[in-house]
Amino acid sequence: MKILLIGANGTIGSAVDKELSQRHEVIRIGRTSGDFQVDISDSASIRALFEQTGKFDALICAAGNVTFAPLGEMNAQHFALGLQDKLMGQVNLLLIGREFANDGASFTLTSGILNRDPIRSGASAALVNGAIDGFVRAAAIELPRGLRVNSVSPTVLVEAMDSYAPYFRGYKPVPGADVALAYAKSVEGLQTGQTYIVD
Amino acid sequence: MKILLIGANGTIGSAVDKELSQRHEVIRIGRTSGDFQVDISDSASIRALFEQTGKFDALICAAGNVTFAPLGEMNAQHFALGLQDKLMGQVNLLLIGREFANDGASFTLTSGILNRDPIRSGASAALVNGAIDGFVRAAAIELPRGLRVNSVSPTVLVEAMDSYAPYFRGYKPVPGADVALAYAKSVEGLQTGQTYIVD
Repeated sequence: MKILLIGANGTIGSAVDKELSQRHEVIRIGRTSGDFQVDISDSASIRALFEQTGKFDALICAAGNVTFAPLGEMNAQHFALGLQDKLMGQVNLLLIGREFANDGASFTLTSGILNRDPIRSGASAALVNGAIDGFVRAAAIELPRGLRVNSVSPTVLVEAMDSYAPYFRGYKPVPGADVALAYAKSVEGLQTGQTYIVD
Repeated sequence: MKILLIGANGTIGSAVDKELSQRHEVIRIGRTSGDFQVDISDSASIRALFEQTGKFDALICAAGNVTFAPLGEMNAQHFALGLQDKLMGQVNLLLIGREFANDGASFTLTSGILNRDPIRSGASAALVNGAIDGFVRAAAIELPRGLRVNSVSPTVLVEAMDSYAPYFRGYKPVPGADVALAYAKSVEGLQTGQTYIVD
C-alpha cells in the first residue's frame, strides 16, 4: 500500500512509520520535515500536498495542535487553534483527500485520551478529541467506494514522558509500538467508523 | 433556583420549562422570543444577555444550529455553523456565564445522539455533539466555587417527529417529558462532568 503519514517525525508518527514501513510504501509528511510538507490548518496547503503525492491507499494523520491552558484563563480565542488545526485540519484531510484516495482507501485520524480521562488545562484537547471521534463515527457511514475512516485515541506515550510527565501524573504510559498497532489495525483491517482506544 | 433557559421556545426547551417551572424561577430566553434574546454564536450578545439577567443558579442551553448535508457535498465551510453556533456558542455560555454564576451553579449543555448512532447528513452534528460531551467532561474538573457542567444527549423527540421522521427512520423517539428529566437531574442533582444519555 502507498501510505501518506502526516506527522511522520513526531512521537506517534515515528512509531507508526517503524510498524508500517516494514511492509508498505510510507510517504513521510511533516510541517517542516519529511518527503513532503503540509500545514493541515490551511486547506490550500492540504490540496497542494495531495497534488504532489498523487493517489494513495491510506492516509494517517498523527499531527494536530491544540492550546493547553487552565480553564480559568481561557476564552473562545484559546479554542480557535484546536478547532482550526487538530480538528478541522484532520477533517479537511478527509474532505479534500477523498478526491485523491484510491477505492477502498482508509483515513486514520488521531484523537486522544483527554475526553475520556481529563487533565488540568485539557479542555480544548478534550473538546477536539470528542469531535474527532464523533466525526469519524458519522462520516464512515457516508463514504463511497469502500473508503473507510477511523480514529486512534491513545493515552500518553512512554516516549513522550520526558516532557509530558508533569501533566500526566498517575497515567500509565503506553509504548509507541503498542499505539502503532492500532494504526496498523485501522489501515490493514477492514473496519470503519471505529475509535481504537490504546491505554 | 433562578434558571436561565436558552432555547425555551424549542421542542426540548418547552419540555424543560414545563418540568422545572413547577418549582423554580425559569427565565425564558430565545433567539427572537422569550423574556430575553441572545444569539449564542456571538460573544457580545452572550455578554449582553448576562448583563440583563444578572446572577443565576443554573443555565440550560437547549439551542444550537448545525448544518445537515450529505457528506459528499460538504467542505470545511459546511462545518463552520456548527462550530460557531452549537459548539462554541454553548462553550461560550460557560466561559462568559461563569462570571455571572452564583457559587454552586450548574451549566447544562445539549449534545445529541448523532455521534453515537449516526444518520445520513449528520457528520457536522456528530462532530459537534462529541465535542460538547468531551468539553463537559474536561471542563468539569477545573471549575471553581462548586460550579458544575453536564450535557444531555437525547435521541429524537416524539414532539419533533412531524418534521424529523424522514431523517430518523427506525429510531424510537422519546417524549420531551423524559428528556426534561435529564435536565432536572443535571440542575437539581450534584453530579458534574456527566453526559446524560436519553434514548
